[in-house]
Order: sequence, then C-alpha cells, then structure tokens
Amino acid sequence: MPKSTLKEQFLGSDILSLDQFDIPSLLKLFSTTDHIRYLAQNSIPVDILKGTITTLLFYEPSSRTFGSFSAAIKRLGGDTVDILNPQQFSSVSKGETLEDTIRVFEAYSDLIVMRHPEKGAAQKAADAAFFIPIINAGDGVGEHPTQALLDLYTLYEKFGRLDHLTGLFAGDLLNGRTVHSLLKGLSLFKGNTIYLLSPEILKLTRPNIKLLEKRGLIVKEIRSEKEIPKKADFWYWTRVQKERFTDLAAYEKVKRSLVITPELLKKYADMDMIIMHPLPRVGEIDTKIDKDPRAVYLRSQVRNGMFIRMALVSLVLGKIK
Amino acid sequence: MPKSTLKEQFLGSDILSLDQFDIPSLLKLFSTTDHIRYLAQNSIPVDILKGTITTLLFYEPSSRTFGSFSAAIKRLGGDTVDILNPQQFSSVSKGETLEDTIRVFEAYSDLIVMRHPEKGAAQKAADAAFFIPIINAGDGVGEHPTQALLDLYTLYEKFGRLDHLTGLFAGDLLNGRTVHSLLKGLSLFKGNTIYLLSPEILKLTRPNIKLLEKRGLIVKEIRSEKEIPKKADFWYWTRVQKERFTDLAAYEKVKRSLVITPELLKKYADMDMIIMHPLPRVGEIDTKIDKDPRAVYLRSQVRNGMFIRMALVSLVLGKIK
Amino acid sequence: MPKSTLKEQFLGSDILSLDQFDIPSLLKLFSTTDHIRYLAQNSIPVDILKGTITTLLFYEPSSRTFGSFSAAIKRLGGDTVDILNPQQFSSVSKGETLEDTIRVFEAYSDLIVMRHPEKGAAQKAADAAFFIPIINAGDGVGEHPTQALLDLYTLYEKFGRLDHLTGLFAGDLLNGRTVHSLLKGLSLFKGNTIYLLSPEILKLTRPNIKLLEKRGLIVKEIRSEKEIPKKADFWYWTRVQKERFTDLAAYEKVKRSLVITPELLKKYADMDMIIMHPLPRVGEIDTKIDKDPRAVYLRSQVRNGMFIRMALVSLVLGKIK
Repeated sequence: MPKSTLKEQFLGSDILSLDQFDIPSLLKLFSTTDHIRYLAQNSIPVDILKGTITTLLFYEPSSRTFGSFSAAIKRLGGDTVDILNPQQFSSVSKGETLEDTIRVFEAYSDLIVMRHPEKGAAQKAADAAFFIPIINAGDGVGEHPTQALLDLYTLYEKFGRLDHLTGLFAGDLLNGRTVHSLLKGLSLFKGNTIYLLSPEILKLTRPNIKLLEKRGLIVKEIRSEKEIPKKADFWYWTRVQKERFTDLAAYEKVKRSLVITPELLKKYADMDMIIMHPLPRVGEIDTKIDKDPRAVYLRSQVRNGMFIRMALVSLVLGKIK
Repeated sequence: MPKSTLKEQFLGSDILSLDQFDIPSLLKLFSTTDHIRYLAQNSIPVDILKGTITTLLFYEPSSRTFGSFSAAIKRLGGDTVDILNPQQFSSVSKGETLEDTIRVFEAYSDLIVMRHPEKGAAQKAADAAFFIPIINAGDGVGEHPTQALLDLYTLYEKFGRLDHLTGLFAGDLLNGRTVHSLLKGLSLFKGNTIYLLSPEILKLTRPNIKLLEKRGLIVKEIRSEKEIPKKADFWYWTRVQKERFTDLAAYEKVKRSLVITPELLKKYADMDMIIMHPLPRVGEIDTKIDKDPRAVYLRSQVRNGMFIRMALVSLVLGKIK
Repeated sequence: MPKSTLKEQFLGSDILSLDQFDIPSLLKLFSTTDHIRYLAQNSIPVDILKGTITTLLFYEPSSRTFGSFSAAIKRLGGDTVDILNPQQFSSVSKGETLEDTIRVFEAYSDLIVMRHPEKGAAQKAADAAFFIPIINAGDGVGEHPTQALLDLYTLYEKFGRLDHLTGLFAGDLLNGRTVHSLLKGLSLFKGNTIYLLSPEILKLTRPNIKLLEKRGLIVKEIRSEKEIPKKADFWYWTRVQKERFTDLAAYEKVKRSLVITPELLKKYADMDMIIMHPLPRVGEIDTKIDKDPRAVYLRSQVRNGMFIRMALVSLVLGKIK
C-alpha cells in the first residue's frame, strides 16, 4: 500500500510516517486517545482487542518501544507474538528476504508492528504485506511516527490545542529525530512559535529552518539560556551526544550549560509549562526535578506513548470507529 | 511415554514423529483442522484453550515455527511461557540435564512444545515428563512432525483426498527433511505417483526410493524440466543448498535450471495444480509468481501450519474430542 | 519505599527480602497459597489478575524464575511484558540509569518483577518507583525472597507447621543463598533443630551459626552421613560447587560422599520425610530417587514456587484480601 494521507481512514491503513497525518486524522487519533486514557485511568476494563494477534517484529532491540506496544495491546485484551532479532533466526540468516518474512508473519497475525535498523524498511514491509497493515515502530534514521504522535498528544492533553503554542527546543537539534518530527507536526497548526537553543555544532540546519518557516512556524534562535522566554508553554529537552564533539572540553562546557536545574526552572519557567524529553537522558535534566509537577518526561509522556498506541492499534484494526 | 501409533488417541499423547500417524489419525486431525480453519476464517471467536499454559521451549531459534505455535495457541485463548535459548540460562549452563529441565517446566505448564538441535531430544523429553505431553517442534536432523502435517493438510485441503495424487518434487531431495517426511506421508495412501527432479548430487538415494516403492508409491525420476508431467497436482519445490557443491559453476548452472518462472509454469503446469515450498526460499521461485493463485507457499501453506497446530494442541489437551 | 516488616499489609508493598516477613505475614501468604493451589489442582479457573500487566524485567537470564512468574501470572488471567537483557537495549546501553528504566516500565504496568545481577538493585528499583510495587526475583548475592518462601511453604504444606521440625542441610552451606534464607526463615519459629553436613571448606561460618542459635535454632554439625538422624523431617540437599576446590581429588571424594542414593535413604531416612533441593542438581541426587514419593524437588517444590508466586502477586496487587 502506498504512503498517503490518512484522511481519518485508519482501518487497514499502514502507519509509516507522521507525514500521513493531516489535522483531522490527528484530532481523531487524539480524541480516541483521550477516551482510552479516561477508561484506563478509571480502571474500566476494555477488551476490544480480544481475539486479535499482533506480531511485534523487532530487528533491533528497543525495550521502551517494545514494552509500550506490548502493554498497549495486552491492556486492551489483545495478544502478541514476540519475534526479537529474527535476523539471527534460521530462515532470515539463510537469506530470506524481508518481503517473505513479512508474508509469513502476516499469515499468523492481524497486524505487524515492525522495528528495523534500515531507513525505508517499513515501506518495503507495507508493500510486501498482502492482507494486513504494518505499523512502523522506527526504521533507522527514517521515521518513528508513534514517538512523534505521543509528543504531540502530550501537548494536546496539557493545553487542549496544538496551535498558538510557544516552545523551547534545547540540546542536539541537528541529529535528534524526535525534534524534527515534533517540529514538523507543530508546523501543521497555526501560530506556533519555537525557540531553538543548542551548541553551535548541533544547530538545526538553515534549510530545515527555512522549510519550517515556510510551513508557518515562527522560529527564533537563541544563544543562551538567558534568552529563554518566560511565556514558553513547553520545553523539549534532548541529550547532547558526546560522540559529535572532537574537542572534549568544549563538549563539557556546552553540556553543562544545557542542564535543567531547579535554578534554571525558577528563573525562566512558568508554573504552567511542561518539561518534555524523549528519553533516555544522561544527565541533562537534574533528577531533583523529577518530582516537579511540570516534569512530564517520566510520567504522562511515557504513559501517553502507551495510550496513543492503544488508540492507534484499535483504530487500524477497526475496533474503534 | 513410548512412541507408538496414535490410533486417534490424541489426548495426552506425545507428538514426536510423523510415524505415529495412521490414516484414521491423520483424517481426524485434518477434519478438526478444517473445522478450526472455518471458524478462524469467519472470525468466530474460540476460547477452548483458555486457562491452559504451554511452554515454548526453544533450544535453537526458529522464528517461523515459534511464531506459528505462539499464534496458534493464543488465537484459541491459551497462553504461552516463552523460553528461548535456555542453554544460555543459568541452570542449564550449570550442567542441568534435559530431563530435569523438562520436569521443571512441566510443573508450570499443561504442554511443552520443544525445539532442539539434537536428534532424539524430543523422545528424551517425552520419557522425562511425568505428567504432560510433549510436541516435537523439530529435533535437528530428526523429526519435525507439524511441518510434515501441514504439507499433507495443504494437499488434503486442496484436493479433498491424499490418494491418487501426482506430484513433482524438485531441488535438494537428498538433504531436505521436509521432502522425506512428505513422501513418507504420501506413501501411506494408495495410488500416488511422484516425479523427482534434482541435480545429480542431490538425488534421493536408491535405498530410499526402493523403500517408498515398497510402501506403494510410484516413483519416477526425471532429468529435466521438459519431462515435468502436465497432469501434476502439485509441485513441491525446495532450496538447492549452495554449500553442498564444490564446483561453484555447476551449482550456478543447476540452480538456474531449477527456478520456477512464469514461463515454466505456462509450459508445464495445469491451472488446477498448486505450488508448494517449505520456505525459506532464496531465489528458486521467481517472485513474479507470488500473486498467482496456484502459489500457496506464502499463503495457505503458512496459514495451514498455524491451523494444524491449533487443531493438534486442542486435541492433545483434550479440548476437542 | 523503605524495606520494613509487612505486618500482613501486602497491597502495594515491595517484596524485596525475606526479612520483611513476620510470622503472621508468612501464615497469611501460606494460607492464600493453599487456597490457590486447591483451585489450580481442581482445575477451577481463576481470573483475578485479568486486566493487570506485570513487567518481567530480567537483567540476567534465569529460565526457572522467569518461567515460574510468567506461568503464575498467566494462570490467573494476567499478562506480562517480557523484557530480557535490557542492558543490551538501546536506552540502557546509552547510559540510562536503573531509576529511569524503572520509571518507564512502571508507566506501562501494575507491577515489576525484577531480576538483577547486583546486590541492592531491588531496593534501588523500589526507591525509584513512584506508583507501583517491585518484587525482587533475585539481586545477585543479595536476596531472592520467593525462592526462600517456596522452600518454607513446601515444609508448611507437608507438615502443617513450621515449628518443631528437624532438618538436615547438606552440600555447600557456605555459599548457598537458598540455605541461608531457609535457615533464617526457620529461625523465626520455635523448636526447630538443624543438622549441618558439608565438606570442611564449605561449612556454614561460625558467626552465622552463632546468630542462628541466638535466634532460637538448635544447630548440630555432623561430620559424616553416619550421623544423620533418622527422625529428620526433611533433607535439604545442595550442589557442591566444583570451582571452590583447588584439590580436584578432594572434590571428587567429598562430592561422592554427599550423593543421595537409594542405599543412603534406606539407612537414614524416615518414610515420612521429604527430600528438597533448590535445583539445578548436577549429580548429587541419584536419579533413581526421582520417583520416590519423598522426592519433592522436581514436583511439589517446583509447583509450590509457582503457587507461592500466584498468591504473592495477587496479594500485592490487592486482588485477594
């Protein structure tokens, strides 16, 4: 099946990229997620996936994404067939193509959720499948749509809208896939303003910024934490990757300047904003902040990942209309 | 428990070898499979394995067999305990015997499905188990009964019988375990004719042919695709294993002569025959053929593997009489 | 949450160490286990964990403990998210702390059962979790409370009490974690007498013996099997670890003197006693004894491990009061 705009048609659709989502599709997914979250948080049992089998086909390990999909499906009464590292299994190691592997597992299941290290693998899998949909759970430097969707939903859940928001993006803005996806998602909506703060060598590229501006995003680059706008609705913080630096001293200095501390929050953050992070973190958010109600990275952001996957799987399998 | 003919007594029986199946047992299994397939294809939910636990004890990886059993059990409402590579786990690596490992897992489960690299391991496991049955999911160069059963069932499903069939076996007929099993199965029934086509060094051995003839099979060796009989009901194609050849040029030539192409089909195949392959394939069937309705290797053959396992597990656990 | 005495308050409590159990808590757990065992042995279906998700977070492989928890939870209608070797997964390998990993998985699940190679890891995990309880499934040389509980319950099941028992402990009494835990558990109760038999270099240490005596246990060291008291209610046999010996001949001699044979049983064992072993065994119990009704190591002891985990998980999740 070709990758095209969903137009609210989830049933049977492959979910390969955030690019498939127009505004109505996003809002439909998010209102479904709201509903499922409400049921879950009030311990109302829902068995809508009962009788369905989803193959979790993970060509590379990812405990977080695997666990999130696994829990999402089982919480709705569905079950999974877990295939980890199939390339070490006999058939694939004997030279079987990805296409044949997909067709074998589609014979057993109603849905395949696939993680693969190679860009484009998800599209290849979707093209190979005769009967069932594929959800891309990350294909290398390609796409990881459910991660982008959970970030957007976390903003939607908090603010009730995805337009006229002001956000700060900090850390590695050059290489972070989640940053690019979230910016792309926000550029669908009107009136969003984005501040960018990163070490010189990890800045978002000029062509990228131009593109986002063309799509309607107001982009402001800042050079220091002192320029962080107090009115920001959210901070989206990311890990600065040590391996990108040749000058280690520069790395240490830069890294230290981009740590969220209680002091930084006190100076520059509103009481009503939220602090997001795609995880894992390795020191760029002081653990003292973990219990701050504004810190959503280890709580609602992670849980929202599960809720959005519950909604998405239910819609794709036609168990929610 | 000793390996003996089933005589339609599935409840509590170990399933170790195709040799246990007489004609009535095969037909009972296949009519049960028909029934389960009908329910599945009409999305009629069946929960007959609810409350049962099957340990999938896989000493070597096999994504296909593992996935097929896992899906089969879960589709009927049962659940599995997945133990992959237990030899890397502490107890076995400390020198625990297979017998002790089996007795531990039988304490947790109602059934053990075991895959093991050593011939005879399944029988050893069955002898060790005090209370519960063992299903052999392949023990090295030994047996893999559910693979043979799915091949037989695929013929049964298509033709409504297993006698008076004409089949072509091509590829590696010397080493292919699935070929030997299917030939053995077909020799139980009357009036079956088999054509064999393979590179000289991969031919079925003379003693093997004699034995099959003695059991009633009509065996015809052919030397080229030109001798393929147009009336064949099925082609059973297998992978030619490169590693068996010392002369690589000979391999390339031979391999090329044994590829199913649209042209070959057009010339030598009936419209009502089916093309089977045990998978994985590595080029010996042109992918152009995948959508041909006669190509069952990636569709009903794989699905039948799941259905036959659904039926077998249900019968062995006494959930279907 | 701090590690403290349970006082029969299982709901929401972390289960990290046998030290948390006072006598009323043990008896409550055991009577719950009795009940669950009765239902299971009479095939009465129980779905009390339906709708719950437990993450099995295993940082080191342990097929037995993993399988036992997996089966326990699924037999009660619950489901699991299986995360094996997360340290090989991307997030942890990128330097994520144990604390962050725990907080991610608690967002997906109602309970985390964790196995970890480092002593103290279970307490760290419990301190990190905001909302859900942790069950320690072994943290290196630290604790493995469910193993100790299943040993105690096996005695309780057989004798209807945990006081005024006489037991023989044999094998490696220096390094065996299960020995230490069971002795600690027995020392909670009155009138228990313990005989210790081990190679000189594998003896329980003097300070350890002093401590147990102070807690009320009557401890008697013996030097040879000839001193085994015929009135012993149970034998708790363990593996002598070859790697502890430098003189291999000495090991062979000692090892041979500590094997349970039919002859040894005939001479020194009562008909009403039971033979226990934490498994795996590597020759120290003659397999001829496996079918002796007194041999519980491969039957009720292993099954009791599952039953005790069924009871414990149900109590901690508040599904049984």
